[in-house]
Amino acid sequence: MSYTAPIKDMLFVLKELAGLDTVAGLPGFEDAGAETAQAVLEESAKLCEQVLAPLNVEGDRNPSTWKDGVVSATPGFKEAFRQFVEGGWQGVQHPAEYEGQGLPKSIATPCIEMLNASNLSFALCPLLTDGAIEALLTAGSEAQKQRYVPKLISGEWTGTMNLTEPQAGSDLALVRTRAEPQGDGTYRVFGTKIFITWGEHDMAENIVHLVLARTPNAPEGVKGISLFIVPKFLIGEDGTLGARNDVHCVSIEHKLGIKASPTAVLQFGDHGGAVGYLIGEENRGLEYMFIMMNAARFAVGMQGVAVADRAYQKAVAYAKERVQSRPVDGSAKQAVSIVHHPDVRRMLMRMRALTEGARALGYVAAAHSDIAHRHADERVRAEHQAIYEYLVPIVKGWSTEMSLEVTSLGVQVHGGMGFIEETGAAQYYRDARILPIYEGTTAIQANDLVGRKTLRDGGAVAQRLLRDIDGTIEALKAQDEPSLRSIATQLEAGRDALARVVEYVVAHAKRDPNAVFAGSVPYLELAGIVLGGWQMARAALIARERQAQDPAFFGAKIRTAQFFAEHVLPHAAAIETSIVTAKGGEGWLALDGDQF
Amino acid sequence: MSYTAPIKDMLFVLKELAGLDTVAGLPGFEDAGAETAQAVLEESAKLCEQVLAPLNVEGDRNPSTWKDGVVSATPGFKEAFRQFVEGGWQGVQHPAEYEGQGLPKSIATPCIEMLNASNLSFALCPLLTDGAIEALLTAGSEAQKQRYVPKLISGEWTGTMNLTEPQAGSDLALVRTRAEPQGDGTYRVFGTKIFITWGEHDMAENIVHLVLARTPNAPEGVKGISLFIVPKFLIGEDGTLGARNDVHCVSIEHKLGIKASPTAVLQFGDHGGAVGYLIGEENRGLEYMFIMMNAARFAVGMQGVAVADRAYQKAVAYAKERVQSRPVDGSAKQAVSIVHHPDVRRMLMRMRALTEGARALGYVAAAHSDIAHRHADERVRAEHQAIYEYLVPIVKGWSTEMSLEVTSLGVQVHGGMGFIEETGAAQYYRDARILPIYEGTTAIQANDLVGRKTLRDGGAVAQRLLRDIDGTIEALKAQDEPSLRSIATQLEAGRDALARVVEYVVAHAKRDPNAVFAGSVPYLELAGIVLGGWQMARAALIARERQAQDPAFFGAKIRTAQFFAEHVLPHAAAIETSIVTAKGGEGWLALDGDQF
Repeated sequence: MSYTAPIKDMLFVLKELAGLDTVAGLPGFEDAGAETAQAVLEESAKLCEQVLAPLNVEGDRNPSTWKDGVVSATPGFKEAFRQFVEGGWQGVQHPAEYEGQGLPKSIATPCIEMLNASNLSFALCPLLTDGAIEALLTAGSEAQKQRYVPKLISGEWTGTMNLTEPQAGSDLALVRTRAEPQGDGTYRVFGTKIFITWGEHDMAENIVHLVLARTPNAPEGVKGISLFIVPKFLIGEDGTLGARNDVHCVSIEHKLGIKASPTAVLQFGDHGGAVGYLIGEENRGLEYMFIMMNAARFAVGMQGVAVADRAYQKAVAYAKERVQSRPVDGSAKQAVSIVHHPDVRRMLMRMRALTEGARALGYVAAAHSDIAHRHADERVRAEHQAIYEYLVPIVKGWSTEMSLEVTSLGVQVHGGMGFIEETGAAQYYRDARILPIYEGTTAIQANDLVGRKTLRDGGAVAQRLLRDIDGTIEALKAQDEPSLRSIATQLEAGRDALARVVEYVVAHAKRDPNAVFAGSVPYLELAGIVLGGWQMARAALIARERQAQDPAFFGAKIRTAQFFAEHVLPHAAAIETSIVTAKGGEGWLALDGDQF
Repeated sequence: MSYTAPIKDMLFVLKELAGLDTVAGLPGFEDAGAETAQAVLEESAKLCEQVLAPLNVEGDRNPSTWKDGVVSATPGFKEAFRQFVEGGWQGVQHPAEYEGQGLPKSIATPCIEMLNASNLSFALCPLLTDGAIEALLTAGSEAQKQRYVPKLISGEWTGTMNLTEPQAGSDLALVRTRAEPQGDGTYRVFGTKIFITWGEHDMAENIVHLVLARTPNAPEGVKGISLFIVPKFLIGEDGTLGARNDVHCVSIEHKLGIKASPTAVLQFGDHGGAVGYLIGEENRGLEYMFIMMNAARFAVGMQGVAVADRAYQKAVAYAKERVQSRPVDGSAKQAVSIVHHPDVRRMLMRMRALTEGARALGYVAAAHSDIAHRHADERVRAEHQAIYEYLVPIVKGWSTEMSLEVTSLGVQVHGGMGFIEETGAAQYYRDARILPIYEGTTAIQANDLVGRKTLRDGGAVAQRLLRDIDGTIEALKAQDEPSLRSIATQLEAGRDALARVVEYVVAHAKRDPNAVFAGSVPYLELAGIVLGGWQMARAALIARERQAQDPAFFGAKIRTAQFFAEHVLPHAAAIETSIVTAKGGEGWLALDGDQF
């Protein structure tokens, strides 16, 4: 088996760290307890392990192809997608009233993780469909919801996000695609969109493109962008598919990784205009797109966890099998499997600690989102929404950046074999490289963390999280086991570093924005390791309590948390220095362009 | 121009940090002063920039091919190699008595850097030939030297290193290839070697394979390995090429990167045995191979610097050209080129600081090697040899690991375009990935650093370097410029961390080898950032003194050194914690295999 869903750890995190019981106590989630979670995860694992995981290498070797505007997915993908659709997997977290399963995001998140771990390229298609569903549910008219959402939830149709243009990447103010009203309530859309993931393919009968465009006389910049539905095939009044719309895939990209997932250049309106339907109000497109994007950003963070775990599993399997060199402590006369060598073990522990920490942070964030959506008390909803929104750029930015390190270590564990494509470790290294880029680069996430998530509330949410961390530190200090006390020491140092950085960001952003934004990615990384380390510390406390029940699992959890604390958390102070002591590097920010 | 050799920085480092004047004062290097260095570097740059750099992308798109045992290099490579040979570039650092140029390693090193920066795949062929030359010069008989070395130095023939076998990678004790004496002084070699770089190709008329093999009745393990010359074509008494030897390339690998460089599986002796000639004495092969390997390890460290610099140059060019988003400080109403955005600048500064630090450390190491070879006083030679040997695993391990980060940042600066292969940034990311693996993985380098380079002399060389660092710290503290004082603070903290780790390694290796070796790669990384940061600090002191002469260059040097100090050096303390406080992770080392 090339991938085994880590159901045990997933359920542990869901129940013990993300508070699945609390989620199952929310209105509408009464059936979403531990039993449901286990059943859903086990069923999801079957599809992922048996159908999707074996297709992952295939997708890398035989990417999607383009011919005369038609994109054919990797052989086997269409059939696998049919099974995905038949299992109802697109609908896991979507409302029952549109024929979804109505499960909490907490339970959907491990499903998303395993989908991506088994096949990142494949999983991108449902990932973007999820985003389209969320945008339509939030901003679409009732008629639009009725027309599109059930088909998207069933998986009969898929969705896309059309933001990027050649001149407009991170900067959506530069979007030029235009939408001309036809007087009948419809628009005609003209323009070129690039980097459209699964923008054209043969796995579903229709594709619902959500497209950012400008109406005539719209204001310049981001305040003049509207959001449109542009279906690949027009839909008749009775819901049947009609004429082909004027949106065409003119090419797909030749990429470093995720090769099975077609990245399309879409041309809108070369033959008279693509029929488009306005979502919500004119000029509020960016706001709606952000709904979609936030869902997608969270999911991309889970892609980081997913590919990291897959790389970890492969590295462990190789390390147990590959025999090379005698043990350094002289405990055997013969060469042993490399898992016994201290540095191989260090690499595996690092891969594992980062992956488990990021997984825990992601699932905890998902639970906050569930409470934010379903809690009876509006005040509680708002509080959890704020925490979730603070966590999203961290989940996205940190989990994806760490996936670069983990997949790179995965190659390293394989030695020279890791560099040979047939081995498979290199694919994860290549695939992961897109994750800190798409759906907003790490710098964009960090800008969001600084601007909207820290400055806007004067650091209030961050302070709230820091107080929660204090509780964990106190509990750790009360333990007599040295490993837990060591975790307490490192977590406290990390917490203090984060606290000082938050303070610095809030105090200096107005006065010296360049310095603060020069430290924005380091701040995000710092927040990631402290919050991830906190989750691991919480896990260690629980594991200590239950150790007797399952010594192997809980023992490993404590060791992994200790590794995280002693190898990852100490860097918090170093990052603080690079931000605060260095004041964002007054000097190097002032270098002339010519000096580079 | 896709690559511009950074001659100004190279000469600065050579003259001011590596002490080229001292080198030019050594017997036999009288003509190797600054003028010679400049002339050689400028001439080398022409070939690298104009001929080799443009072929780099070509090599990635059209790798070497294998057909019926014949390997054809990428179109254009053969002609480029002819120009390389005609320029006498293979002979730069080799003795004049064998028709080399007899220049110091200090001057050869920037040539090697630019060769690799322009075309990593191409440069591997001369890199391995260099290693073969060194091994033959040290351990070959006079007749062997006369027969092979001039042809290798001229570039008419190329050399290879044949160590690895399917079951014997890092662990050469497992080598099985056998060599049977024929009674006439020759041997017949039988076996399979894998991962043989440029093991077969059409760029030169002959290939001199140096092959590790066992003679009958040789002791088990590494003490029973001998080194043999196995030429592709046998050589007649008159030096002309004779019959094809029984060594054949049965396939080449499909790799993540350096695709133009054929990685061969070589089959020895399938048709009666490959004729081989013993080098030096039986069973001392590993010792001789280490000569070759040490030269190659240093050169691979320079490959790290090279690919990092190439990635930096590409990222800078893109950042100056790509216009996206308004400045965060509101200083412009329009979108600006992204080099103005603080995080892009941070990424570029990080790429630059790491690259310059590693370059400086490498060139300084090369100068130690020159003194070790040529100084009149044996005691001085021994002292510098010991420093050089301490530095080699650090130059190899740290420079190549940092090249992974730098080439990854290079992709990130390009955003989505970085993930598209046509852009070219991804090639560096893929190419670099082999560097911390071949010629001994980072763990192997770290074992060498701990075992042979630190424990054997009780940390004496390390202490000597720490004392030299103290001198730099004192000089920095005497300055009144805040940037230099900040560098002093961080360098001192880094120095202290390294000192404590050396002490820990020396004190604990016997008692607790697993813990110490679990911290070996972190120790190597720590040594890299402290020694690299030290070189940058030395550079800043000189730049401060000369700032008026060239404000742009020296100003940038100070800022870059400050960035290194404030963003890279603070991690020294964190690494110390992970080694010393964590004691190599007593806990996680004890996990059962099943717990992974």
